[in-house]
Amino acid sequence: MTDFRQSLEENAGAVTRALDRLLPASESPEARLMEAIRYSALGGGKRVRPFMVVAAARLFSVDESCAYRVAAAVEMIHCYSLVHDDLPAMDNDDLRRGQPACHIKFDEATAILAGDALLTKAFEVLGGEATHPDARVRCELVTELARAAGDEGMVGGQALDLMAEKVDLGVSEVTRLQRLKTGALIGFSCESGAILGKASKGARYALHAYAHDLGLAFQIIDDLLDEEGDEETVGKKTGKDKAAGKATFVSLLGVEQARTQADLLGDQAVEHLEIFEEKADPLRELARFVVNRRA
Amino acid sequence: MTDFRQSLEENAGAVTRALDRLLPASESPEARLMEAIRYSALGGGKRVRPFMVVAAARLFSVDESCAYRVAAAVEMIHCYSLVHDDLPAMDNDDLRRGQPACHIKFDEATAILAGDALLTKAFEVLGGEATHPDARVRCELVTELARAAGDEGMVGGQALDLMAEKVDLGVSEVTRLQRLKTGALIGFSCESGAILGKASKGARYALHAYAHDLGLAFQIIDDLLDEEGDEETVGKKTGKDKAAGKATFVSLLGVEQARTQADLLGDQAVEHLEIFEEKADPLRELARFVVNRRA
Repeated sequence: MTDFRQSLEENAGAVTRALDRLLPASESPEARLMEAIRYSALGGGKRVRPFMVVAAARLFSVDESCAYRVAAAVEMIHCYSLVHDDLPAMDNDDLRRGQPACHIKFDEATAILAGDALLTKAFEVLGGEATHPDARVRCELVTELARAAGDEGMVGGQALDLMAEKVDLGVSEVTRLQRLKTGALIGFSCESGAILGKASKGARYALHAYAHDLGLAFQIIDDLLDEEGDEETVGKKTGKDKAAGKATFVSLLGVEQARTQADLLGDQAVEHLEIFEEKADPLRELARFVVNRRA
Repeated sequence: MTDFRQSLEENAGAVTRALDRLLPASESPEARLMEAIRYSALGGGKRVRPFMVVAAARLFSVDESCAYRVAAAVEMIHCYSLVHDDLPAMDNDDLRRGQPACHIKFDEATAILAGDALLTKAFEVLGGEATHPDARVRCELVTELARAAGDEGMVGGQALDLMAEKVDLGVSEVTRLQRLKTGALIGFSCESGAILGKASKGARYALHAYAHDLGLAFQIIDDLLDEEGDEETVGKKTGKDKAAGKATFVSLLGVEQARTQADLLGDQAVEHLEIFEEKADPLRELARFVVNRRA
């Protein structure tokens, strides 16, 4: 295992422990709800977004316990979106990270509620005093995460994605879709480090630009894995977009050009980090990892 | 129309205008999502919870524009919960406020996303600077609303409610269920006025106690309307709980005792307001209205 893979895994472990503390198992009659919440949030994953939060926060020497709370909140949002996206009325996926999706393991109603609860909990965590001593910083985290996750961000992107099965989208429209659907939360993940560190506008913009390019590269690779990957390695059903006749970067650009584009975006992302010098090496390695990942 | 009904309607109009400003119609390709959000949030309703926010905030001479933002955020949470509760996998209701439920008017996927977006937007509004000049107050609003709405509040209550169809609950269990499902958000609605006004612990506790009793009275009347009301007046399907064999205050106490209990709780709620003297008259009238409502 490379050093980077090891630090990614160590970070994932720390995030899972933070989530475990913030989402304690319940003894109450509605324990099944908390079981579904924990199943959805603690079930693994590479925790790429939380890694971004923590790596960006380190650029500004932010207290680690603050950074991990924000990382956990971001992951709660990501996990809730997966639970709701997998529902029969949405993408209708039975498999997630190689395990039964939440609505299969439990039931649809419980999956809807578990998603709602995770979404709500993310804001409870960000608003809490332990997230940052300055309440203005906490408020900015709350409003920025809400913007990234809501109708002008992730949820808006998912709405567009549902339409994408019915209309023909071009490259610029798919780009906008993905900027909303996955880019906005990736953007918050990187920028939250700057918010926590009360960083300069320049530093914040650099992280924004890095996230913007890397987010698109991330999505192109996702499309390539859907096209080329096998279910066992990827941990979810593959070939779905093609079967649904959905426009993706791969269907629009072809496999080769899509890969070239992802490489280019990865390089471009890294260039934005120059002002941070070697302190940003973990974010540079993350960019390489994202572009070269096979699952 | 009584003076109180008129002031309730005026307040509902002001809340709807605030929601209209906070949820502007969209020109973007995903406009259908915003249409569903606006359909669900602007479609009327008595706006009882927002009335509580504004009436409680007036006790402490809180700036009205701040109070209406919190009122709108509370209503967003209430509306999202109705949209998700009406889904086929949950209560499977086609009718809401005499109109097609969101998933009937649009589709299930759009209804899930519209609910998610409304829930998210509530926190964006609370975190925004216009909600209160003091960021600590805004953070407290965020964390308290999240607690009231999440797994230890409204969502937890809804999870219990789904179980209630399968197990026999007694009065104390139904009381706990309703305290979570409807009581927690009603509690926040009243207490948020005290948070906005940086009120004394005593004043905040009085509002908490008022909300606690009134919330239960509210639910008992809801159960009575489900038992006795007709669909046209109530604006949603009635007789559902009985058909589902679900334990309610009415099935457990009988119609007469349930009504007596609601009256008693209404009186008890009003007693907690004594320290506010005549300034709390709108909250007293609200209690009478809640107990005597027929829809």
